[in-house]
Amino acid sequence: MSVDNTFESAHFSKMLRTVDVPGGVETVMEGQRAFGLISNAFEQLNGPIVVMGYASQGPAHANNLRTSLREAGSDVPVWVALREGSPSRELAEADGFTEENGTLVTPDVGLKNAGFLAMLMADGSMAGQGEEYLSKMRDGSVLGLAHGYYEGYLESQRRTIKEVAPQLAGVVGVCPKGMGPSVRKLYEQGSGINSSFALSSGDRQRMTDLGLSWSMGIGSPYTFQTTLGKEWRSDIFGERAMLLGGVHGMVEAVYAWKHQKGIGGERAYLESVETLVGPISKTISEEGLTGVFEALGSEKEREEFASAYNATYPVLKHLISKLYSDVSSGREIQEVFDDYSLESPKPQVDGGQMWRDGEKVRASMTDEQRRQIQIEPAVAGMYIAGMMAQVDVLRANGHYWSEVVNESIIEAVDSLNPYMAHKGIAFMVDNCSDTAQRGGRKWAPQFEAWLRQAVLPVVDGGRIKDSQKAGMLLHDDKDYMADFLNHPVHKALETFAKMRPPISISVTG
Amino acid sequence: MSVDNTFESAHFSKMLRTVDVPGGVETVMEGQRAFGLISNAFEQLNGPIVVMGYASQGPAHANNLRTSLREAGSDVPVWVALREGSPSRELAEADGFTEENGTLVTPDVGLKNAGFLAMLMADGSMAGQGEEYLSKMRDGSVLGLAHGYYEGYLESQRRTIKEVAPQLAGVVGVCPKGMGPSVRKLYEQGSGINSSFALSSGDRQRMTDLGLSWSMGIGSPYTFQTTLGKEWRSDIFGERAMLLGGVHGMVEAVYAWKHQKGIGGERAYLESVETLVGPISKTISEEGLTGVFEALGSEKEREEFASAYNATYPVLKHLISKLYSDVSSGREIQEVFDDYSLESPKPQVDGGQMWRDGEKVRASMTDEQRRQIQIEPAVAGMYIAGMMAQVDVLRANGHYWSEVVNESIIEAVDSLNPYMAHKGIAFMVDNCSDTAQRGGRKWAPQFEAWLRQAVLPVVDGGRIKDSQKAGMLLHDDKDYMADFLNHPVHKALETFAKMRPPISISVTG
Repeated sequence: MSVDNTFESAHFSKMLRTVDVPGGVETVMEGQRAFGLISNAFEQLNGPIVVMGYASQGPAHANNLRTSLREAGSDVPVWVALREGSPSRELAEADGFTEENGTLVTPDVGLKNAGFLAMLMADGSMAGQGEEYLSKMRDGSVLGLAHGYYEGYLESQRRTIKEVAPQLAGVVGVCPKGMGPSVRKLYEQGSGINSSFALSSGDRQRMTDLGLSWSMGIGSPYTFQTTLGKEWRSDIFGERAMLLGGVHGMVEAVYAWKHQKGIGGERAYLESVETLVGPISKTISEEGLTGVFEALGSEKEREEFASAYNATYPVLKHLISKLYSDVSSGREIQEVFDDYSLESPKPQVDGGQMWRDGEKVRASMTDEQRRQIQIEPAVAGMYIAGMMAQVDVLRANGHYWSEVVNESIIEAVDSLNPYMAHKGIAFMVDNCSDTAQRGGRKWAPQFEAWLRQAVLPVVDGGRIKDSQKAGMLLHDDKDYMADFLNHPVHKALETFAKMRPPISISVTG
Repeated sequence: MSVDNTFESAHFSKMLRTVDVPGGVETVMEGQRAFGLISNAFEQLNGPIVVMGYASQGPAHANNLRTSLREAGSDVPVWVALREGSPSRELAEADGFTEENGTLVTPDVGLKNAGFLAMLMADGSMAGQGEEYLSKMRDGSVLGLAHGYYEGYLESQRRTIKEVAPQLAGVVGVCPKGMGPSVRKLYEQGSGINSSFALSSGDRQRMTDLGLSWSMGIGSPYTFQTTLGKEWRSDIFGERAMLLGGVHGMVEAVYAWKHQKGIGGERAYLESVETLVGPISKTISEEGLTGVFEALGSEKEREEFASAYNATYPVLKHLISKLYSDVSSGREIQEVFDDYSLESPKPQVDGGQMWRDGEKVRASMTDEQRRQIQIEPAVAGMYIAGMMAQVDVLRANGHYWSEVVNESIIEAVDSLNPYMAHKGIAFMVDNCSDTAQRGGRKWAPQFEAWLRQAVLPVVDGGRIKDSQKAGMLLHDDKDYMADFLNHPVHKALETFAKMRPPISISVTG
């Protein structure tokens, strides 16, 4: 399959780069905060930018766009639309979006006036009320989505946005590859989170310019192209897999496994969570996936990595393939919508002993101690095997390299894991969207169980035969490590990782 | 809501009893092995009984029907139909269904000749090939289903069996409330497993007589009425909930919780699995749910039970309600079919340390030691709370008491748990249908995670506030124990439990 994921824009021509990826080329817009370029597309619209919803992505988009447009000397207004009684009103007001200055409005006023409406409500609420809201948008206005969930929801009902709102001039998606708080925090720190953009309908050139303007305005250091259909699949899949569910299940399984071996709770936490969100994530971010393997000092450690990798990859490949099928069929989207409608509660994810141990570890650890945490070779092998399984499943389903490496690797190590490092699992999962929170809760236990029952016994040696005896054929004698070391993903990751600005996220507060 | 779940049959009139249940009446056929009554309905058919498939339910139905008809002096033949190369051929031949004596045939021959076709293949296979198979059935033949999966599968595609096979004289379901091996084993031991029966289409009286004949022929000690729509919902739901997934997740969570408290592996196994499948199940079977509470010897133990009950019920009620919605929507059925089509593997369920500890416990325990295992009050409170949540969710969704108590309580303690007691979790789960095996694997980890993160910290005292702080509102101050002690289910359970024959299952081999 040859890869051709290119696009053009005369207005942004100086920012576009077409880069080689394994098997072809992709165009990427580099951000570099050229905010002077962004006002043009918004000024052509016949109304303000209205951000609807103010939970995860809303505050990031509203604040970043407002600041970027001011820096560009533009007077395009940015409004926030919230219903009466929304629990987010206080937060929006604290950020300067108030009724007094005319930038905090009701949904009806926002819908009636918006030239560009960024629909950033909770997914379930979007699915439930989207049709009513879209019908109220003015003729010729443009709908912006920060991910493809709503299109996926309509697709599961065999409908399209164009059918629901034929009066729109276009629909464009700009989808940050990180949680909303990261998008805001990195912007403030002078850096940013990469985004994908996707055109759904409307004039191709005009919507491209608008999407690129939106993406640069929220501070994306670079922007790559996808489709809404690919976006929602990779996004809903990725968060259920290694970004949230998979990594959560993995650290739970590893903690219990260490504990079983007689290792005390706090040390078990260090050797599961801290090694993963610390040196393993940092090394991946800076040196790539093979960099972790190469950083191991001894032959024995490399063997531990390889053995864990080989035990993990084939098992998680099966689970992750099944997960992709559950997502791509539309079932996960329908389930989230039902859960949302039924007000199905989300239990806390950190009630167990390991997260209480984690609190103690974080409270007592000095920066120096944190720097001295080592890479646990088996944990590194398992984690990277999970990432690689995710990469291979996304590639097999036709996702472009830009999306694959961002949804499988970069988002994890640059945006999400730092949140787990800072305050534990809940701080990571529950800063994400409702869809992600529910999906992470559902899938983490399944990753944990597969790892406990079918991977860790193999890592401990000698249980491969039992798995084969059970007729499950999860394992074989293939040397997955050899595939890993020669995998094209490393080239793709290098290409996209080096476009990032040099500042890493610093999570505080 | 007043309950009226009655039916009539002149032929079986002496076996029918209409019993009082909370809020109304239900008719039940008592079995009492009156095999003389069963040949009439089968003899009116224009061809043999053909059992298609020979995995979980197939062997039980084929062997039990053959024996019962012989005892009745009937010469209605019982055939088994299997495709060439089916891994079950050897087993069927060992049971006397052979090509030589004309009772082992190909699917095509079976479909062409059957007067009554019991379609007992794996659900996924049924979904994939059902349409082709049904189109080959002869005019005027009758389709028998051992549960409603296939109707549910068609319903999720907005189709019906009648549309797929209009030439059939009728469709009837007889659905044993236990795994196939239990249906066979208890029949041989002179007892049996209760079944529900459901009419889907065809002449009402004729199909009633055929369904009751089939049910009595496989040895059901009693038979109650449902619909295929209620049957597949309660069945697929029940196995994912407390029958398989819930009980598996619960013992994993309890084992780890005990282990965390410094209790060694083997003792932790005794205090999680053995207490549950031993004295707790036995007491429920003989004395009902409140019997367990009453069997506790001290006020302290009763408080432990009540406190665990109150911590568990509201949390599992949420999870189990969500589960019912996932099933009733058709999503679980579609997922099983996709997994089956993709040949998605089923990982072993007993690779972890606890099941290795369990092997040691079972190998070294004497019968005397087994008899001395005590009811663990907290485990009993948690388990019964899960059952009660399941009862309440089924009742809220309009299921009759007969189905509710069989799918929530009787099937667990009389049919399934004895298998876990005998050889561990895999021996229970993997003797069930493929649909059950997949569903149990999917849901057990979710029950475990909810219990670990949101229930056990509360059982340990003082974590309720944290849950409330997280805004999840899983717990409240309601006294669920008081509802439990006054619940109408106890009357219903007593009614249906006392109709069982006095012999309990003895699992060997």
